[in-house]
Amino acid sequence: MATKSRFLLQRAVSGLRAHAAWSTSTLSPGRRLWRPQLRHVSWLRELPDVLSLSLRSHTCGELRSHHLGDKVTLCGWVQYLRQDLFIILRDFSGLTQILIPQEESARHLKAALCDLTAESVIKVTGTVRRRPVGQENKGMPTGEIEVLAEDVEVFNVCRQLPFEIKDFIRKSESLRMQYRYLDLRSSQMQKNLRLRSKLVMKMREYLCNVHGFVDVETPTLFKRTPGGAKEFVVPSREPGRFYSLPQSPQQFKQLLMVAGIDRYFQIARCYRDEGSKPDRQPEFTQVDMEMSFVDQAGIMSLVEGLLQYAWPAENGSLKVPFQTMTYEEAMRDYGVDKPDTRFSMKLVDISEVLLSSEIEFLQSAVSQPGGSIQALNVPRGAVRKETFPVRPLLGSLRLQCAQLLESCGISLRNPSAFHFLWVVDFPLFLPKEDEPGQLESAHHPFTAPLPEDKQLLYTEPHKVRGQHFDLILNGCEIGGGSIRIHKASEQLHVLKNILKEDPSLLSHLLEALDSGAPPHGGIALGLDRLVSIIVRASSIRDVIAFPKSFRGHDLMSRAPDLVSDEELKSYHISVRWPTEEGEMK
Amino acid sequence: MATKSRFLLQRAVSGLRAHAAWSTSTLSPGRRLWRPQLRHVSWLRELPDVLSLSLRSHTCGELRSHHLGDKVTLCGWVQYLRQDLFIILRDFSGLTQILIPQEESARHLKAALCDLTAESVIKVTGTVRRRPVGQENKGMPTGEIEVLAEDVEVFNVCRQLPFEIKDFIRKSESLRMQYRYLDLRSSQMQKNLRLRSKLVMKMREYLCNVHGFVDVETPTLFKRTPGGAKEFVVPSREPGRFYSLPQSPQQFKQLLMVAGIDRYFQIARCYRDEGSKPDRQPEFTQVDMEMSFVDQAGIMSLVEGLLQYAWPAENGSLKVPFQTMTYEEAMRDYGVDKPDTRFSMKLVDISEVLLSSEIEFLQSAVSQPGGSIQALNVPRGAVRKETFPVRPLLGSLRLQCAQLLESCGISLRNPSAFHFLWVVDFPLFLPKEDEPGQLESAHHPFTAPLPEDKQLLYTEPHKVRGQHFDLILNGCEIGGGSIRIHKASEQLHVLKNILKEDPSLLSHLLEALDSGAPPHGGIALGLDRLVSIIVRASSIRDVIAFPKSFRGHDLMSRAPDLVSDEELKSYHISVRWPTEEGEMK
Repeated sequence: MATKSRFLLQRAVSGLRAHAAWSTSTLSPGRRLWRPQLRHVSWLRELPDVLSLSLRSHTCGELRSHHLGDKVTLCGWVQYLRQDLFIILRDFSGLTQILIPQEESARHLKAALCDLTAESVIKVTGTVRRRPVGQENKGMPTGEIEVLAEDVEVFNVCRQLPFEIKDFIRKSESLRMQYRYLDLRSSQMQKNLRLRSKLVMKMREYLCNVHGFVDVETPTLFKRTPGGAKEFVVPSREPGRFYSLPQSPQQFKQLLMVAGIDRYFQIARCYRDEGSKPDRQPEFTQVDMEMSFVDQAGIMSLVEGLLQYAWPAENGSLKVPFQTMTYEEAMRDYGVDKPDTRFSMKLVDISEVLLSSEIEFLQSAVSQPGGSIQALNVPRGAVRKETFPVRPLLGSLRLQCAQLLESCGISLRNPSAFHFLWVVDFPLFLPKEDEPGQLESAHHPFTAPLPEDKQLLYTEPHKVRGQHFDLILNGCEIGGGSIRIHKASEQLHVLKNILKEDPSLLSHLLEALDSGAPPHGGIALGLDRLVSIIVRASSIRDVIAFPKSFRGHDLMSRAPDLVSDEELKSYHISVRWPTEEGEMK
Repeated sequence: MATKSRFLLQRAVSGLRAHAAWSTSTLSPGRRLWRPQLRHVSWLRELPDVLSLSLRSHTCGELRSHHLGDKVTLCGWVQYLRQDLFIILRDFSGLTQILIPQEESARHLKAALCDLTAESVIKVTGTVRRRPVGQENKGMPTGEIEVLAEDVEVFNVCRQLPFEIKDFIRKSESLRMQYRYLDLRSSQMQKNLRLRSKLVMKMREYLCNVHGFVDVETPTLFKRTPGGAKEFVVPSREPGRFYSLPQSPQQFKQLLMVAGIDRYFQIARCYRDEGSKPDRQPEFTQVDMEMSFVDQAGIMSLVEGLLQYAWPAENGSLKVPFQTMTYEEAMRDYGVDKPDTRFSMKLVDISEVLLSSEIEFLQSAVSQPGGSIQALNVPRGAVRKETFPVRPLLGSLRLQCAQLLESCGISLRNPSAFHFLWVVDFPLFLPKEDEPGQLESAHHPFTAPLPEDKQLLYTEPHKVRGQHFDLILNGCEIGGGSIRIHKASEQLHVLKNILKEDPSLLSHLLEALDSGAPPHGGIALGLDRLVSIIVRASSIRDVIAFPKSFRGHDLMSRAPDLVSDEELKSYHISVRWPTEEGEMK
């Protein structure tokens, strides 16, 4: 049984490596002598051991002059060949220069190396030597050394690629998406995905290990929610019955509080079918949290602690608590409920000053009931703009001014600044856009009113403020949370009498609230957006491994794709092909 | 702005709590004096702080005699009332006895407490006192003390419930599922979900922090795979085009290796539409891993280290390496490729002994080409059973014998034993069940052959063994992994010439392999099954928060549900209602 014994020997070595990476208690003296791994065990350097279990002895990014004379094995991709003399070898950690031996005795090795195309994958064994004086590369972390090749194994020779893997090569978005597995080799995409992974890991440590949260997975095959126009449907094998991919685990996390889980979190995949909207994805990820026996201040502190704990060290430390502003203040000073507070330029009400103005249209504006004149002070902008009692317009104008000034080279917003802001005291209901006599939830129907506004629910619901809070980062909404209604009677009143919805669709939630629901609240952070701001990406597509195009296509595999009638039969559906007149059959 | 100042005060207090839970470096002297939290900060007891940010000062499970005289605030559910004298209050951590004051001066408090129904939710403040001599409860961790109530806040009075929240109350499966938020309050379900969360957290620590794996999320809206009959479809807004919910991230994880991610993992949601199969779920979770520049032994050691690191301490420690057996040995000795090695009773070939038997049907069996007689030795079973060259039948008989013996009270398998086993050297291809002249992949078409069998791919593919390995725990398959094919030409040969599949459906993967793919391999562990074995649950439904019934229904929300024709219009599908004859319209 030759296979088996070779295999068991391999396993003995690999097992040693895996074990050495984390256990201090059971190392035998024999194991201790096993040198190449020992320098990298995690308790010595407190970093992950990326060499464990691998064919490499070192990564391409780590060799320095203290490795001189070491025999090393590197695995990686050929970044480029130079003058049949050098190969620059790349892995996720960086680059190393490989020196191709020129002696006649090494002619087979030289031939093998010189035949390689860019992006071919090899394993090279060789000795670390100092680069000749004058040939060091100070701009390269491994620039003091090179590795004289002594042996090579070619794993794969690469075909001609549609683009080169160099950061400065500009590629169209669609080419990047079609060949995503090449695009992800860029140092920026490697950095983005690795930072995201580390950030999420720190968040988990904070929630699980520090605060005792329980990571609970909730279903993604669920029931369509009332008015869930943006929910994908999934046909089942029962005629006419469909699952729905939920937009968030909102109902489940509240049910978990009723179930006594006490502290729940999940890095949750969510789904929203918004057709073609720029920089939206049909599936996205949120950091979803819920707590029992907590108030609004508690949830906000939790999130501040979470971000402070998980914040990447290279971006400096975060100061908490974050600034807080009421919805009213935000609308008054910035004309928007998610102000970019990295720069001032607040809106100013100048009605008083202009009360005695002789300019007719200004006079007419201030003399109307509730009329006012507002201004935007654009420093160094030499622009002063007045307009009517319409603040959202001014708020949008403010951002456009900022862009305009910055495009003229006037520095307004520090590109390395991170301004977090809480906006609180939102109205609980807003008039429906298409039916202004009717109210709809400003966020969702489960938000509790402020305690002092509770009675207004039954008299003047449009005046009620909710225990809702939004987290804003640099003018982007990255999270929204609230304290939830925990009494069935109050939830029923909101659904039935205020929102005029059919409460039977949420009967399971109403029954749950009536079965001993604790007071509870929570929040969800948009992970894709948060990471994209941290790494200063222009799109959330740059922090997602395999995103869809803005039309919802996977350009690499060409999804969504045609499915045969035969395959649809078991789901009891058929396609309604558009007729030539644009009508459905 | 009274709201805001109250609110900022709340936040100052909550922030202090959140902060105290993890930072040692910035505690001011004033903060240090804040007593109730300080006893619980994580660096003192190295446990999560489940009191942070909460309305409670202690949990219901933690009070002991060293708390005597302390003023405490507890939040929880009324387990039961006793003689208008006591309330037993429950939270996730345990139970505490609350003493109802009987003095006339406390009559309002007494009335409020005595009015409570079981499962009502309250906050109680009171003083910890020793129970009178003789009234201690040794079976209850808090049985030495009780809390004399001084104040109560009733958050919710509970309605009459469909079943009591007591572990010994037997409920039907469908009732448990319909009222899952009540079922999850049981101590067993609380334990299961919390153990699962901790296990996964330890696995993440091992993969990310110890071995440098990158947690990458892959899409669940993907393209239908060839022959993916078990994949749910998701209609898109383009007529006739569908996404598919993938059965695993197999293609993505291989593409991530081509992309140079080097080490990937994901706790991945997967989907499989198997109709109504017992103890299967339409969505399930796997611990999904992939590595570059690794061999089979490396992956196996990784998994052994992972399980050893994450193994719940209360189950003892795991010994590695696990036992390894070839597919051939497993089939020979146990008649199955996932042997339960907790007991012996191996199959024995007794053909030699019976060669000279005079019993005619035995004679005829051994005299046939390849004929043999096999036996099963059932110790203390007083049963000896011979049958033909059919080992799977005997394997199944072996398990039935074990059950039979155990049902007669003969202890065969230690219920607290965990026997891990690797099965290796599987055949790469098997004859198709319905077309035995044709081969299909034993696992999936991406598995690489054993190096020594590689040439057989082009001559005798049915003889090729694959670099595939299954992980078995107590006779259940809990994981399957392999080294993958990393050369495009080899993958094309397997797809086109051996499996006779249309390679254009996987053209993106073939192109990727041709673009500098490293050697790579990985494994996926079935998390639901693994956790269910660890907690000795009879079904994976007991380790999933909101599982579907075996018909794929959510009995709580009644999913899947009817969706109106109008809502289906934007997805260009319509329902094919069965006609009375059982045919489709």
